Amino acid sequence: MQRELNEKCAVVGIFDHPEASKLAYFSLHSLQHRGQEACGISSADGIKVHTIKDRGLVSQVFTDEKIKTLKGTSAIGHNRYSTAGDDSILDAQPVFARYDLGEMAIVHNGNLTNAKEVRDRLIKRGAIFQTFMDTENLIHLIAKSEERKLLDRIIDAVKKIEGAYSLVFLSRTKMFAMRDPYGLRPLSLGKVGNGYIVASETCAFDLVGAEFIRDVEPGELLVFEEGKEPKSIKIFEPTPKHCIFEYVYFARPDSDVFGQNVYQMRKNMGRKLAYIDPIEADMIVPVPDGGVPAAIGYSQESGIPYELGIMRNHYIGRTFIEPTQQMRDLKVKMKLSPITSLIKGKKLIVVDDSIVRGTTSKRIVKMLKEAGAAEVHMRISSPPTTDPCYYGIDTPDKENLIAANMSNQEMCDFMGADSLAYLSHDALLESVNAVDSQYCTACFTGKYLY
Amino acid sequence: MQRELNEKCAVVGIFDHPEASKLAYFSLHSLQHRGQEACGISSADGIKVHTIKDRGLVSQVFTDEKIKTLKGTSAIGHNRYSTAGDDSILDAQPVFARYDLGEMAIVHNGNLTNAKEVRDRLIKRGAIFQTFMDTENLIHLIAKSEERKLLDRIIDAVKKIEGAYSLVFLSRTKMFAMRDPYGLRPLSLGKVGNGYIVASETCAFDLVGAEFIRDVEPGELLVFEEGKEPKSIKIFEPTPKHCIFEYVYFARPDSDVFGQNVYQMRKNMGRKLAYIDPIEADMIVPVPDGGVPAAIGYSQESGIPYELGIMRNHYIGRTFIEPTQQMRDLKVKMKLSPITSLIKGKKLIVVDDSIVRGTTSKRIVKMLKEAGAAEVHMRISSPPTTDPCYYGIDTPDKENLIAANMSNQEMCDFMGADSLAYLSHDALLESVNAVDSQYCTACFTGKYLY
Amino acid sequence: MQRELNEKCAVVGIFDHPEASKLAYFSLHSLQHRGQEACGISSADGIKVHTIKDRGLVSQVFTDEKIKTLKGTSAIGHNRYSTAGDDSILDAQPVFARYDLGEMAIVHNGNLTNAKEVRDRLIKRGAIFQTFMDTENLIHLIAKSEERKLLDRIIDAVKKIEGAYSLVFLSRTKMFAMRDPYGLRPLSLGKVGNGYIVASETCAFDLVGAEFIRDVEPGELLVFEEGKEPKSIKIFEPTPKHCIFEYVYFARPDSDVFGQNVYQMRKNMGRKLAYIDPIEADMIVPVPDGGVPAAIGYSQESGIPYELGIMRNHYIGRTFIEPTQQMRDLKVKMKLSPITSLIKGKKLIVVDDSIVRGTTSKRIVKMLKEAGAAEVHMRISSPPTTDPCYYGIDTPDKENLIAANMSNQEMCDFMGADSLAYLSHDALLESVNAVDSQYCTACFTGKYLY
Amino acid sequence: MQRELNEKCAVVGIFDHPEASKLAYFSLHSLQHRGQEACGISSADGIKVHTIKDRGLVSQVFTDEKIKTLKGTSAIGHNRYSTAGDDSILDAQPVFARYDLGEMAIVHNGNLTNAKEVRDRLIKRGAIFQTFMDTENLIHLIAKSEERKLLDRIIDAVKKIEGAYSLVFLSRTKMFAMRDPYGLRPLSLGKVGNGYIVASETCAFDLVGAEFIRDVEPGELLVFEEGKEPKSIKIFEPTPKHCIFEYVYFARPDSDVFGQNVYQMRKNMGRKLAYIDPIEADMIVPVPDGGVPAAIGYSQESGIPYELGIMRNHYIGRTFIEPTQQMRDLKVKMKLSPITSLIKGKKLIVVDDSIVRGTTSKRIVKMLKEAGAAEVHMRISSPPTTDPCYYGIDTPDKENLIAANMSNQEMCDFMGADSLAYLSHDALLESVNAVDSQYCTACFTGKYLY
Repeated sequence: MQRELNEKCAVVGIFDHPEASKLAYFSLHSLQHRGQEACGISSADGIKVHTIKDRGLVSQVFTDEKIKTLKGTSAIGHNRYSTAGDDSILDAQPVFARYDLGEMAIVHNGNLTNAKEVRDRLIKRGAIFQTFMDTENLIHLIAKSEERKLLDRIIDAVKKIEGAYSLVFLSRTKMFAMRDPYGLRPLSLGKVGNGYIVASETCAFDLVGAEFIRDVEPGELLVFEEGKEPKSIKIFEPTPKHCIFEYVYFARPDSDVFGQNVYQMRKNMGRKLAYIDPIEADMIVPVPDGGVPAAIGYSQESGIPYELGIMRNHYIGRTFIEPTQQMRDLKVKMKLSPITSLIKGKKLIVVDDSIVRGTTSKRIVKMLKEAGAAEVHMRISSPPTTDPCYYGIDTPDKENLIAANMSNQEMCDFMGADSLAYLSHDALLESVNAVDSQYCTACFTGKYLY
Repeated sequence: MQRELNEKCAVVGIFDHPEASKLAYFSLHSLQHRGQEACGISSADGIKVHTIKDRGLVSQVFTDEKIKTLKGTSAIGHNRYSTAGDDSILDAQPVFARYDLGEMAIVHNGNLTNAKEVRDRLIKRGAIFQTFMDTENLIHLIAKSEERKLLDRIIDAVKKIEGAYSLVFLSRTKMFAMRDPYGLRPLSLGKVGNGYIVASETCAFDLVGAEFIRDVEPGELLVFEEGKEPKSIKIFEPTPKHCIFEYVYFARPDSDVFGQNVYQMRKNMGRKLAYIDPIEADMIVPVPDGGVPAAIGYSQESGIPYELGIMRNHYIGRTFIEPTQQMRDLKVKMKLSPITSLIKGKKLIVVDDSIVRGTTSKRIVKMLKEAGAAEVHMRISSPPTTDPCYYGIDTPDKENLIAANMSNQEMCDFMGADSLAYLSHDALLESVNAVDSQYCTACFTGKYLY
Repeated sequence: MQRELNEKCAVVGIFDHPEASKLAYFSLHSLQHRGQEACGISSADGIKVHTIKDRGLVSQVFTDEKIKTLKGTSAIGHNRYSTAGDDSILDAQPVFARYDLGEMAIVHNGNLTNAKEVRDRLIKRGAIFQTFMDTENLIHLIAKSEERKLLDRIIDAVKKIEGAYSLVFLSRTKMFAMRDPYGLRPLSLGKVGNGYIVASETCAFDLVGAEFIRDVEPGELLVFEEGKEPKSIKIFEPTPKHCIFEYVYFARPDSDVFGQNVYQMRKNMGRKLAYIDPIEADMIVPVPDGGVPAAIGYSQESGIPYELGIMRNHYIGRTFIEPTQQMRDLKVKMKLSPITSLIKGKKLIVVDDSIVRGTTSKRIVKMLKEAGAAEVHMRISSPPTTDPCYYGIDTPDKENLIAANMSNQEMCDFMGADSLAYLSHDALLESVNAVDSQYCTACFTGKYLY
Repeated sequence: MQRELNEKCAVVGIFDHPEASKLAYFSLHSLQHRGQEACGISSADGIKVHTIKDRGLVSQVFTDEKIKTLKGTSAIGHNRYSTAGDDSILDAQPVFARYDLGEMAIVHNGNLTNAKEVRDRLIKRGAIFQTFMDTENLIHLIAKSEERKLLDRIIDAVKKIEGAYSLVFLSRTKMFAMRDPYGLRPLSLGKVGNGYIVASETCAFDLVGAEFIRDVEPGELLVFEEGKEPKSIKIFEPTPKHCIFEYVYFARPDSDVFGQNVYQMRKNMGRKLAYIDPIEADMIVPVPDGGVPAAIGYSQESGIPYELGIMRNHYIGRTFIEPTQQMRDLKVKMKLSPITSLIKGKKLIVVDDSIVRGTTSKRIVKMLKEAGAAEVHMRISSPPTTDPCYYGIDTPDKENLIAANMSNQEMCDFMGADSLAYLSHDALLESVNAVDSQYCTACFTGKYLY
């Protein structure tokens, strides 16, 4: 029962700080929820770009000794959610390269939609690809650009790619941060000491004592040079299409992304949800931890009491012991357990953030019913997830998305719930105070940007 | 920022089940919150008692292969919170012994108050102690008893000890479960398949598919023999003095202990708390995870909205990297972080379950104030912890208990809070529906049982 | 292809040295060949006895930090070859005990032949046994002795045990070393700095810069007290019966045991072997590493050239990959490989120290024949191993000892060798300069001491 | 006291065998002495090239499960001795690439002397380098070649490189093996089942049950295609200059390299050495394990007895404990120890294969003298190592090579030996039956090939 949808990455960059690699380390630590498979940091000391990356959590990969070898006053870092392939080439970032202008490292959050075409073109021109990461395209584009300065080459390169990208580039003396014209993935700018920080989420700022300045704009390239203010270059006209799923599920509740606090957006969704097919019930029960903020919002709006009817066990760790015959639904039960005496004979509104395959929801309903719940009404604080994401989230194929293949009634029956209701597309947009169409909602609509 | 008070153990026993050691394993898994340093399981197959124990979490110590070597239809298990000594002798349980009646294993949750006297007497009679665990006394008392049957020896032995104990004994063919006359530590009896289970908390029953029968009574000894119902022997007149801290802090919210659901008791405490020095505020904020149920109760009673103002990060793991100078209070911040935009300028009532040394509370108040909280009112869902526990909880000395050394105002000043209020002793008792004086509250009163 | 016969232990003691536990560590390091499963050190600082023990090699179990916690100026240590049981109780030494005179730790090399009787008697008197080690008997005997001083109790205790023992006892202020009346297992005394060292083999002295004084005598008890010369007490009349297998196989070639150098004794055996069924051959080939010294001796005596016809690969480590069908005898081949071009068409005399089950020898002969050897004549530098050892060596049962179940010709046929000859019992005794019957040769004769 | 000179790699290739990756695994296992830092295997199943590589020994990196994912009937493998850099990019092989003709993997033993020039040229043409390995040049040269077929591109590529290389290329359906025109590094061809094997040393053939066919010729390219005999293409006129150090030190004694058995070559060197500055002595003592074969040869030629005067301890493993003040030369002593009673008062001829920095030899002489040796005469079975190797061996700079900076007498004095003699250049060539100048001896002469 791992998270069913996975963000592919977190990025961070520190510029002009005496303990750059240490700040990168702690920033990655606070962004661990965005990728747990592999991580890495590159630092630059004016002469060389040093890189350490490996499989594992940030706290497992880095030791004090290793951080010390990452010398210099600038550093970039990356957490990765690795797609499980049958190959074990180390697809970790930063991607490092020696090229004609020296040494460079890149970190990338997002997904390039024209990666294959770009790669094919590059390969035809003699490039070789040593990993399975989209990001490798970028170092090739930069290396092959006919511009003479790195800045111009970066501009050249990003003009050739499409898709979702929040990027940080590190050279021996400079740092660059760039966001795609849609601003699909978040990227924020802050001040730390006398230097600067960019990070996927602002929760990184809080941990390292940095001060939020503003978001990097969609289509904006920021150039960091020693002794100067970050210079802003507008590469593309911004046409905001932020990933609304960051609000629904991915980002940490204490982060501000796309200019708004995540927790509050989720509470808004819960509030709106209270109007969808409203019913009377004894209590609002969140599916922890994802459903908690929306359940609080629902409760506040409806006046129905909020209760911790399902407990989440945080000591799990992997178990390798097979259950006995009697132990049904062990995987769910080891993580989630009902408070039986609380819910027995009660009418529950159960709030979750989203449904992917539907199997977990089914197990939860069953568990609650077995614990004696009189009625279980599932309420989902986002619309039905009907389409896969191509912009940096690891979703199953359409055939495995339950909402793409069943009607609402069929899903409700499948789960064994007494009713099932989703937040509407419009209500979701209202929850996040959307004006015009500034969010990408392709996973709910199938209307893709590219 | 490990938990500041630690239960010393969990115990479990399975009798007459074809997969006894596997059930013991999963039961210990669900009781992992009661001890994370070491664990072990002994099984009996009619001929031998097999034992595996080691440092580490249940999921780390046991593999499928090891569980298979723990043959037999009965098994007992133990989770341990090890007091950090400078010695590395393996103080894990079950304690195993070969003695004149054969082989035996014991698990123990609690603390013997006359352990030193008993040990000194035993040592004078030639006994040797190979560990630093109280429990070793029991196997000596049993081995040296002049009774001829194990049952009588157990009775003999428990009559010589004082303090808190929930014990499970395993011989080659039988199992025994015993609770001290005060019933200080919990122990429940259930039915699993055609056999029986005893466990420190009922959450173990839920995971393995067992059915709750009743609690083992204070002073009761249960004898499990193949093909028979468990036989109950009243060894001591029951004089219930249940550890009220199980309700306040230790037990899992989804467990029923001492006949009542833990989550509901905590909510009751929160409800009562709403009447202690009531103030107006913008929101109720729990210190997660301990303060959550009481905060929900407080909110329901007061009508002040419940908000997740402080987020808990579950990806922590140990970090070995020293923070930079700017990073203050890193240890707290890596675990807890405020939702700044939610609490900025707001008047908060912050609910926690208890205060031990006061340093964590101080850091939390500081963190909230730095995040912009207008006022922080600390509310504690138990009375001031003024005295150490000698019945199985690892508390600091009195000199390190802040409430034993400061007045309420001094503590409030120390923490930098705008007000501080505790639940009264009487209100706590009311919250848990106490009749007469059926609870031990020595940690709040200094009135010890022995 | 682990070693087929295994010594059960190494012991070491350091007294009156400012870095006692560190010296114990390095001594155990040099004695690692006597036990690789578990190890431990106890130190005494006048007030307490500290103990650290665990599974693993010395270099794996101990860190600088741990050595530092082993405070004090005396220390004892132990390496253990663990018999593979199905139980995972930590049977490591030192055995530590709190008893009526305070704290004590013991290490033991050897095997007690009356362990069961002593244990049964102790158990009848109320003792409990928490491990499966013979050594536990000793702490019970000491604890239960009616003498008032530890010295007298040790004397009392050793008078009750039979078998092989080289023991070191550590109390808070003193150390004692004792060897059984037969002197079955080695134990030497040395001077290190201003203090003393005792160890199973003198190779430990060389590493830590100690100077050899003399062997502890059979039946002698040495008492170490601060500021005094070691005091010698003759507990038993010495009747030397040293384990001749220490010379044949166990001890390190650079150690002097029982007053003579091991390498030279093995060379002598090889020299004698040259007269047993002498044949002409192209070269003498040792089975490395055990057969090397005897092969050198054989070559020097016979004049037939010594050649490294079989190479030993030291990079092995365990492999978990199953071989393919074609890969026969993989386990032997990964460790030993023939130098084909050297032995092709040649007549070989292959020298090994002993044969246990015969399967390894069979594989070696086959490997040499497949590599083209014209003739393979096996020569063993000890008599046929016909009987198990009960004095501290882990031998298989008699039914698994090939020499106990086959005639010489049958064994030769089984191995596929062209001839097979063993050193005679008398020649072995001559090789080690035996006078009278000062060696135990029960494994070759079945004539046991007890 | 790690080996002071280190081979950089071993390579292996298996073609047309149902268990190709398993055979590659075992081959690498037998070649572990040529590189212990990292290893990897790529397999091809006609559709994809699968790669697993990581830090660690072969037995640590691969599990049965991983070998199973390396599907297909051809596989190549690599062991690596990693130069210790401060960067932790994973410089392991096979180097894998996707390029315009599909997928490809390469393994390389050797060192390219024009790597920097080639890389600079490639970088100018837009290539990026993601590792610090020379080998990366090759995939770029192949990818950028204008030829249309892989075979022609490989030919194109190798014509652009200089230096030492034994290469194996794997595409989805074919395998190629190539050796530089000088044949500096070994590479042999064998038959295994119905398929073929190439490997750095023939000891790999023995383990997997392969049959030696012949060496790959200097300048020869072998093409492996399914259902065909390997096709030989002479790319360069062969001008043999085999690395003589393979005979002196690197290759396993049981391997045949460059058409001759390594053990026998070393024995020849020892025999020749007996004529250099001949002296009378009591015994010949090898420095184990490197000096053993030459010492045997010396003994056979001179008639002076061969003795194991120095023992090597194979249980070392790393220790992290600091020695005490008294423990001098701990690092040498933990690995090597003298047999004191054997050498006391004796005149020793000590034979080693080579001297690099001289510090180890100095410690050995000191250790022997302290053990009582009357005289220590060092004899080295190769000429003075005066110049670094640029063809695949990791030698220190010239300033750190003792023989480049001291006269023979100075070295002898530095070591504290009674005499020191090296094998002459001519005698070394005679030992290995050299005709013309078919060996590279640049490390002894400074006469480089490029």
